[in-house]
Amino acid sequence: MNDGSSFRIATALRDWVATAPPGTRLPSTRALVAQHQASPVTVQKALRELAARGLIESRPGVGTFVRAARTARTVDYGWQTAALRAPQSRIQMVPTALRSVPNDVIALHAGYPDRELLPERLVRSALTRAARGDTALSRPPVAGLPELQSWFAHELGASSPVGVAPPTPGDVVVLPGSQSGLSSIFRALVTGGRPLLMESPTYWGAIAAAAQAGVRVIPVPTGPDGPDPADLDRAFAETGARLFYAQPTYANPTGAQWSTERAEQVLGVVRAHGAFLVEDDWARDFGIGTTPRPIAAHDDAGHVLYLRSLTKSVSPSLRIAAVIARGPARERILADRGAESLYVSGLLQAAALDVVTQPAWQTHLRGVREQLRTRRDLLVTCLRHHAPQAHIEAVPAGGLNLWLRLPDGTDLQQLTRDCERAGVLVAPGTDWFPAEATGAFLRLNYAGPNPSAYAEGARVLGEALDRSTP
Amino acid sequence: MNDGSSFRIATALRDWVATAPPGTRLPSTRALVAQHQASPVTVQKALRELAARGLIESRPGVGTFVRAARTARTVDYGWQTAALRAPQSRIQMVPTALRSVPNDVIALHAGYPDRELLPERLVRSALTRAARGDTALSRPPVAGLPELQSWFAHELGASSPVGVAPPTPGDVVVLPGSQSGLSSIFRALVTGGRPLLMESPTYWGAIAAAAQAGVRVIPVPTGPDGPDPADLDRAFAETGARLFYAQPTYANPTGAQWSTERAEQVLGVVRAHGAFLVEDDWARDFGIGTTPRPIAAHDDAGHVLYLRSLTKSVSPSLRIAAVIARGPARERILADRGAESLYVSGLLQAAALDVVTQPAWQTHLRGVREQLRTRRDLLVTCLRHHAPQAHIEAVPAGGLNLWLRLPDGTDLQQLTRDCERAGVLVAPGTDWFPAEATGAFLRLNYAGPNPSAYAEGARVLGEALDRSTP
Repeated sequence: MNDGSSFRIATALRDWVATAPPGTRLPSTRALVAQHQASPVTVQKALRELAARGLIESRPGVGTFVRAARTARTVDYGWQTAALRAPQSRIQMVPTALRSVPNDVIALHAGYPDRELLPERLVRSALTRAARGDTALSRPPVAGLPELQSWFAHELGASSPVGVAPPTPGDVVVLPGSQSGLSSIFRALVTGGRPLLMESPTYWGAIAAAAQAGVRVIPVPTGPDGPDPADLDRAFAETGARLFYAQPTYANPTGAQWSTERAEQVLGVVRAHGAFLVEDDWARDFGIGTTPRPIAAHDDAGHVLYLRSLTKSVSPSLRIAAVIARGPARERILADRGAESLYVSGLLQAAALDVVTQPAWQTHLRGVREQLRTRRDLLVTCLRHHAPQAHIEAVPAGGLNLWLRLPDGTDLQQLTRDCERAGVLVAPGTDWFPAEATGAFLRLNYAGPNPSAYAEGARVLGEALDRSTP
Repeated sequence: MNDGSSFRIATALRDWVATAPPGTRLPSTRALVAQHQASPVTVQKALRELAARGLIESRPGVGTFVRAARTARTVDYGWQTAALRAPQSRIQMVPTALRSVPNDVIALHAGYPDRELLPERLVRSALTRAARGDTALSRPPVAGLPELQSWFAHELGASSPVGVAPPTPGDVVVLPGSQSGLSSIFRALVTGGRPLLMESPTYWGAIAAAAQAGVRVIPVPTGPDGPDPADLDRAFAETGARLFYAQPTYANPTGAQWSTERAEQVLGVVRAHGAFLVEDDWARDFGIGTTPRPIAAHDDAGHVLYLRSLTKSVSPSLRIAAVIARGPARERILADRGAESLYVSGLLQAAALDVVTQPAWQTHLRGVREQLRTRRDLLVTCLRHHAPQAHIEAVPAGGLNLWLRLPDGTDLQQLTRDCERAGVLVAPGTDWFPAEATGAFLRLNYAGPNPSAYAEGARVLGEALDRSTP
């Protein structure tokens, strides 16, 4: 109901504003709350909407005012069309997985874990400590705080077998989120117009980063066992590509974890072509039934560029990730990061390091894994019961998502609209394909809020499938 | 002496590590402090150096250990040379202005204000509040927190004359520092291979961002009055460029502030060519003798892309800036930001907004301006007395830097080396030229630590000039 009442208040306020002289102060939030019998959040939402339309302006600490009517003039930005020309590549703006939604819908579309899966107490106390520390007012080195570089290197190095040199702290470049790492890697190591091999389906953010970098994407089909090494070998040979982007552990969206043998085969193909594997280890903290086994730990010749993020497991506000790379590749990535943003906030780095070095962090992670197991199993059960038409190709051993194959010919647009109308948000699989989708897929996230609504969500999906299937 | 003793300790530790079995725990920092009679900072610096060389590794919360000898194997990354080919453009890595230095040198090279010019109390309490708030665990919209968008729009809009529509909050895209804004603007609006006009000399970070974006830089000469509109007109006509990057207020490095007439002329040329002006208002908070007058406040037709940063005036750890743009240009910038980093940490946004909306913020800024005036005047006096060969073309009315023209034929490399050997760091002017420098220049920053050393710094510079001038 939240949405509805903020719309009602916004409409009432717009009428009021239309007759008020510019500069008139609006009633306080408290007064509006009383007048409209709504929550402060709802009133503020209405005010924000009016502000976004330029009808009112808030002066923080002073109040909210009717804007001068001088904004009424319509400005034509048509001249910009000539100046900007058609874009070199179209970047898809805000995919389903990033949508923010009201509290009362059943959100199976999201890409981020719900707050109850985050280490709230650890995050708040780490930030409070960091607020008192040196990093609150200083500038860290471009590559990151040495202590944090050391933590990232040690975490990966702990998986290195005997005979393989583990990464050193100097191999680590700290990032403001792994998305920035993808952008830098594609920009600095592939460069515009040249080929990039990607698993298909794969993370939509990687597809967006590739579009931004202006590289030519060559999809390599992947499934529950990972890509076929022969397919990969052929793609390298045919295109002259030098870089393959993949998620070998609990891949988003398929949930696939490559076997040790498959990982060795893929690494062998990459080596044979004198190429790089970008190992996006996004779900390192979200193993449920198996343990993550980073491929990067088996490579000391600089073939694997390893991406590790803390954003999803620690907090979306502590956007800290790292790329671990060796040789000239690492230098190019670092130079790109320097030009892009000079350095990463030292405060966020210090707070993230604080969280992951507390003994309670490991306890928290164990709890999260148990919760993910319960949630995953519950969603699987509900789907099998209420939406048997949706085929779960493989129950993932980790990660946050189920990947469903729907009956051939399912109208995905119709389906997602039907579900949304019934208060259930799902993500159409098309977002995860760098080219045409090879079927009708759906990604459902089992890390969102309110797992007790899974049964209802599955029921709505099952009914919508009945209507959308030919 | 800091540097010397950390080197001494590092050497001693290296000898010790060479004979210790892998996995041996190093003595505690406290023990090393006692043993070497050095400060904890010095000991940690030595430890970091050894860690960077892969000789030891610290496991946060556990201790520091001798690394396994398996790192001794030399790995040849030569294969990467074939995979990566020559880079499309070379990005200069870490310019002088970003160098971190020991405490005992006279640092006139820096780009960031010293900690004593920062609102330390405001920053720490804003961060402490933010650590308790909602943004510590949530994900803000791609374009930024609505309240912060509103603050940025209002700050610029307050300068809009009657008849010009002020920006709305929806025109604002919040950035993780203005460097990221430069990268996105050049990438999204100029695109690779196409021409970009830039003041020359200008901010080295903008030159690096242009190299990263792969655009073709066309320098437009500028001086104490800003660029000559006729030069600019010719450059637009000759190259077909559609974007001009400039710092109209307290330009870095020259300190120039364009007059109202010059600003109108430049805006007229930009409009006539159907082009954009990127107004990098980096020193908005650092007016000394005059008040900043943003050109963007005079444009409501979408010709000016306005960059405003809080990093330098609030804190280097609160990397918050914004670009204010209208029309399709704003959409392209937003799409690029989305692909680059999805969103900006909401915690940093909330804390930055908290700082700039405290009444004490305005008091703090007044104090900073007074301190900058004192420091600028002191450095000018010292230079005129001790280094009269260095010509100050114009004493800037704001900003953080003096721009000195040195006698023709001065050997800049020799000069900066001589100064550094005598404990004084200065920044050679070449860093600020997108093409050849048009003379021997030096940039001196008067916002660094310890202004009481200005006289000594000027004396060293004067003597070095005597030796470096033919």
